[in-house]
Amino acid sequence: MAVSQIYAPLFEPIQLGPVTAKNRFYQVPHCTGLGHVRPRAEAALRGMKAEGGWGVVSTQETEIHPTSDLSPFAEGRLWDARDIPALRLMTDAVHEHGALAAIQLVHNGLHATNLYSRAPVLGPSDMSIDTNQPKQGSAMDKADIRALREWHRAAALRAKEAGFDIVYVYAGHGMTLAQHFMLPHLNTRGDEYGGTLENRVRLTRELLEDTHDAVGDTCAVAFRFGIDEMLGPDGMQAAEEGRAVVELLADLPDIWDVNVSDWTNDSATTRFQPQDGYQNDYLTHVKQVTGKPVVGVGRLTSPDLMASMLRKGLVDLIGAARPSIADPFIPAKIEQGRFDEIRECIGCNICAASDNLGIPIRCTQNPTIGEEWRRGWHPEVIAPRKSDSDVLIIGGGPAGMECAMQLARRGYGVTLSEAAPEFGGRVRKESRLPGLAAWGRVADYRLNDLQQRANVQMFTDSELDADQVMELGIESVFLATGSTWRADGLGRNTRRHLPLIAPEARVFTPDDIMSGRMPDGPVVVYDDDHIYLAGVIAEQLANAGRKVVFITTDSIVSSFLTHTLEQHRVQARLLELGVELRCNRVLRAVSSDAVSTVCGFSGQQDLTECAAAVLVTERTRNTTLFDQLKGRGLRNLQQIGDAAGPGLIADAVFAGHRAARDFERPAEQSENDWFRREIIDLREEMP
Amino acid sequence: MAVSQIYAPLFEPIQLGPVTAKNRFYQVPHCTGLGHVRPRAEAALRGMKAEGGWGVVSTQETEIHPTSDLSPFAEGRLWDARDIPALRLMTDAVHEHGALAAIQLVHNGLHATNLYSRAPVLGPSDMSIDTNQPKQGSAMDKADIRALREWHRAAALRAKEAGFDIVYVYAGHGMTLAQHFMLPHLNTRGDEYGGTLENRVRLTRELLEDTHDAVGDTCAVAFRFGIDEMLGPDGMQAAEEGRAVVELLADLPDIWDVNVSDWTNDSATTRFQPQDGYQNDYLTHVKQVTGKPVVGVGRLTSPDLMASMLRKGLVDLIGAARPSIADPFIPAKIEQGRFDEIRECIGCNICAASDNLGIPIRCTQNPTIGEEWRRGWHPEVIAPRKSDSDVLIIGGGPAGMECAMQLARRGYGVTLSEAAPEFGGRVRKESRLPGLAAWGRVADYRLNDLQQRANVQMFTDSELDADQVMELGIESVFLATGSTWRADGLGRNTRRHLPLIAPEARVFTPDDIMSGRMPDGPVVVYDDDHIYLAGVIAEQLANAGRKVVFITTDSIVSSFLTHTLEQHRVQARLLELGVELRCNRVLRAVSSDAVSTVCGFSGQQDLTECAAAVLVTERTRNTTLFDQLKGRGLRNLQQIGDAAGPGLIADAVFAGHRAARDFERPAEQSENDWFRREIIDLREEMP
Repeated sequence: MAVSQIYAPLFEPIQLGPVTAKNRFYQVPHCTGLGHVRPRAEAALRGMKAEGGWGVVSTQETEIHPTSDLSPFAEGRLWDARDIPALRLMTDAVHEHGALAAIQLVHNGLHATNLYSRAPVLGPSDMSIDTNQPKQGSAMDKADIRALREWHRAAALRAKEAGFDIVYVYAGHGMTLAQHFMLPHLNTRGDEYGGTLENRVRLTRELLEDTHDAVGDTCAVAFRFGIDEMLGPDGMQAAEEGRAVVELLADLPDIWDVNVSDWTNDSATTRFQPQDGYQNDYLTHVKQVTGKPVVGVGRLTSPDLMASMLRKGLVDLIGAARPSIADPFIPAKIEQGRFDEIRECIGCNICAASDNLGIPIRCTQNPTIGEEWRRGWHPEVIAPRKSDSDVLIIGGGPAGMECAMQLARRGYGVTLSEAAPEFGGRVRKESRLPGLAAWGRVADYRLNDLQQRANVQMFTDSELDADQVMELGIESVFLATGSTWRADGLGRNTRRHLPLIAPEARVFTPDDIMSGRMPDGPVVVYDDDHIYLAGVIAEQLANAGRKVVFITTDSIVSSFLTHTLEQHRVQARLLELGVELRCNRVLRAVSSDAVSTVCGFSGQQDLTECAAAVLVTERTRNTTLFDQLKGRGLRNLQQIGDAAGPGLIADAVFAGHRAARDFERPAEQSENDWFRREIIDLREEMP
Repeated sequence: MAVSQIYAPLFEPIQLGPVTAKNRFYQVPHCTGLGHVRPRAEAALRGMKAEGGWGVVSTQETEIHPTSDLSPFAEGRLWDARDIPALRLMTDAVHEHGALAAIQLVHNGLHATNLYSRAPVLGPSDMSIDTNQPKQGSAMDKADIRALREWHRAAALRAKEAGFDIVYVYAGHGMTLAQHFMLPHLNTRGDEYGGTLENRVRLTRELLEDTHDAVGDTCAVAFRFGIDEMLGPDGMQAAEEGRAVVELLADLPDIWDVNVSDWTNDSATTRFQPQDGYQNDYLTHVKQVTGKPVVGVGRLTSPDLMASMLRKGLVDLIGAARPSIADPFIPAKIEQGRFDEIRECIGCNICAASDNLGIPIRCTQNPTIGEEWRRGWHPEVIAPRKSDSDVLIIGGGPAGMECAMQLARRGYGVTLSEAAPEFGGRVRKESRLPGLAAWGRVADYRLNDLQQRANVQMFTDSELDADQVMELGIESVFLATGSTWRADGLGRNTRRHLPLIAPEARVFTPDDIMSGRMPDGPVVVYDDDHIYLAGVIAEQLANAGRKVVFITTDSIVSSFLTHTLEQHRVQARLLELGVELRCNRVLRAVSSDAVSTVCGFSGQQDLTECAAAVLVTERTRNTTLFDQLKGRGLRNLQQIGDAAGPGLIADAVFAGHRAARDFERPAEQSENDWFRREIIDLREEMP
């Protein structure tokens, strides 16, 4: 099939130093929580991207030495030759599909905690490391700099041996030594590595030259550069020193991979950066200066935006991390004109949260990510049906829709029944809260898919009781009936002392707010959940003109969002909106005009006046129908998603997907063999 | 050599079900941050305990199933047969020295996050999990309980196959399903597993019976039980339901291993629980009820206390976790009458912090812990000297004393020179702050050792300049000159905007406070360090009657102490003492009567009135002597400890130890081969 002319430029090959990429789709380095801890899972994930058509597939930042030890986080590792075999799995998997394999070598400098290696921390100057760990780094002397260059060169050679086609020098995200040397607030040296910009860029220049020298005959040398710290004149700016760095290094790298710094800016969520392509303004300076190919990012999911960025000459290659996680097959789908099959990234950063937690990557849109090796899941392929059974799925939220879609793809006759007037469940409701509109893509993608399938029947406004279910005569039933927020204040911190809720108290739950039932007057939002919802609801109420006091059992607002890189912005926004914050307080009582809480540290009790309270504590599973259907002789009766165990939307999608994969799979496969695991080699000894 | 009669009872064998322990030293299960992630390091650490004379050596809590997945933390894992070989390494290492090997099987129930396995969370009742993760657990139905029992039985059989002599059922630390079922605030079931205590203990009884049935022919069945939640009538109490549980189960376990709950209470630090043996009052009920051997803990380091606990019939075996980490050779040293060679645990919980960070265990007193396999370090053995060189160590703090002691043990002629009137450096100074007295043991132990060695010369009040050093004619010099707290407010959060310190401002540093220079009047303690020192200083100032405002850039006081299980107590204590807390604020200026800060979220600026400010931000390395000595032709000139990179006391001791081990070791060994590593087996496939 010929590619439409609009998109044809995306499929033109391009020379990158000594190698050639087959097209313009470039999966930039991103973390996976797999890395050296789960190398076969890492290889299979990257191989899937290559299979999906990406011309370049990168592995994540890869530590070059024990002085750059990010344990317990599962990044790449190439400390010595012992690490080569694991990385060769990745390059083999990528090459199998005709893509180039790239590796982002890194020394993390003042960002390295070295908690595993117990090595000293290295930096341009003496100072605390940038994480909340009890360590300070020390200024590197000339011998240290020579050693660093030697480590980097040796790692590049090992990377070449492992089969990589592109080797990075990395000065971005506020996390790397090369960048630490560039930034004057971190580099206070008086020698030729400090002072002028040229001096501060010297180390980067040397690393680029060393890498060219070591592996440039067969490998392209890429340079990942954080061109703007998004701090205005307090930091590096694209139009000032950022541009000057590009001028200084110009044609030294074979590839410029440019983004904004730090990670929270580069990987901004849709909640705070709703516009895809949000980094384009920062890129304009780069192509004007260098003749070398430029890669840019910014949550690029739209084929039209991609094509226009090439057309305008803003970039030469379309970089992507999160969009390639949500859909590893974007290039293939564009090539084949299957645009509406693209699963668009919703910008929720559950992927980043996984890495920050040191666990395998998850994605709200793509439940197969990270499961390619251990569960053998392919995002575009699923086993055909095992029988002529029909299936009934009750509940059209994220778990139910995903389950229905995958069972339909397997070829089963699927009936999807939803009690509400529209499909989407909690996704639809939450996506109407401030900043969460893009989350609606979870429902949109699945609805669009389901609506095109002949073997799917869908009903809204259709609340079924047990008798009605039995009358349908479908013997396999999945219940995705969701959960309901509690109104009684019960949660993590109140289980030993249940709050007293006066009968006249005006108590609301998140379900009330999301269905449009809004409190009047001054309102307390009480958070014992700590994820995102209480913070978003406070924002919604403040936007609606309510005076809001946010009371949390935690010490910050929405602490889970530290992992999604959003927490700082959430708390700043609430303060901006005039929300009053009261932290570390546990609910004791709600009356008609006040909320009573105690300090979690001191036990000191006091009152917060309010006309109403929104309690965001925990959820009750909706199990009525399940309880009624038990023992009625159905062949398969199974709860999935929040109805089985309330969690994230990503968990619900995963549960729906897993249930569809496991349906009519032999029990010894689905129950006993959970998944393949990566286990320590007990043979390995000191080489 | 005959054991003194006082201690002889500690060395009597004891029957434990079908097995016999050779003595009464029982290393209870404790985490190491090694576990299934670093199985050979785990095995070597446990083997070292056995070599040190412990009659029973336990591995840590070991997950029995993917629904009890504590990733990313490195606990034990025995999900299926694939995990047996790694655990067999541990039992072999323990058996080699005639000790019994014990395994603590666990299902973590509502404490399991299952972030790696993505399995549902199981609990007695529907509710949020107990960590700050977006998941709720679901009430187990009867089929779930049957499955759990089967998993536990199968894991016990695998444990037997791996060579364990003692298999645990575990209901403690607030972290296990068996205990979750026991506690009425977590178990709201209406069936025979809920309601009465007998019902709530049913699951534990079944697990004990199942384990006896499965492996009781050759293995003792131990029961670890949290007898008191230390919440008074709000929780289980030793004299009430705790005792009733012992009565209900009485002689069903072969061993009662009893402690207090939760982990923060069981592993209390000396700062908050200065008395060793602090759990004895909770144990008194146990021996009265059961005829089976009882193990008790409580940071038991004193041989006399141990002997008296046996004599009084309080326990049958002396349990230890932390004391066995600080000194794996306690039993051997008691047996041989080498009492003053015991390295006593200081109760700082750096060991617990390691596990909470998911990294290998560290210990302030014992720098070899966790290094037995990867670096080949033995706590009691060190390589003899390579030459007749003499060594000079300048600085008698933790790094310098440790380095001197180990070099002396190697046989070198050691000169240790200290500028201050006494040895100990920061350890001595910090141990005079409230609650930290036991930390002085770090200096006491080393000083006592050094004073008895003929090849060591020690000088206090001896500040040397470069010429004096050169005149000594010692060609190998280690500089452990420590670091000095900054007085300029520079720290993590002020690097882009240096604070303005007015010339008339009364600014103090931690060094001032520790040397007795105390501020008058209302004082601000400003913390950009987040470890322990600012909190302790605030306590000291409040104790001295000062009005204190504690301003931190963090959202809680001393956040690092979350990892040492102390944070909650620190913040509660400051509030008790009337200290006012102001969180999330960054220093901008200090004047003679106020401190100006901005909110880290909103940028909003305000003033806090005060007569003085103590700035706890970061440290400057003391490098003057090093800078003077460079280029003077010394054969070995090396900075160690805080002088090389400020960190924890544990880091300084480790650095001193490592420098001593590496002295005159061939460079290719000490520099290039950092240590052995545990790497994923790339062969393993689905069995």
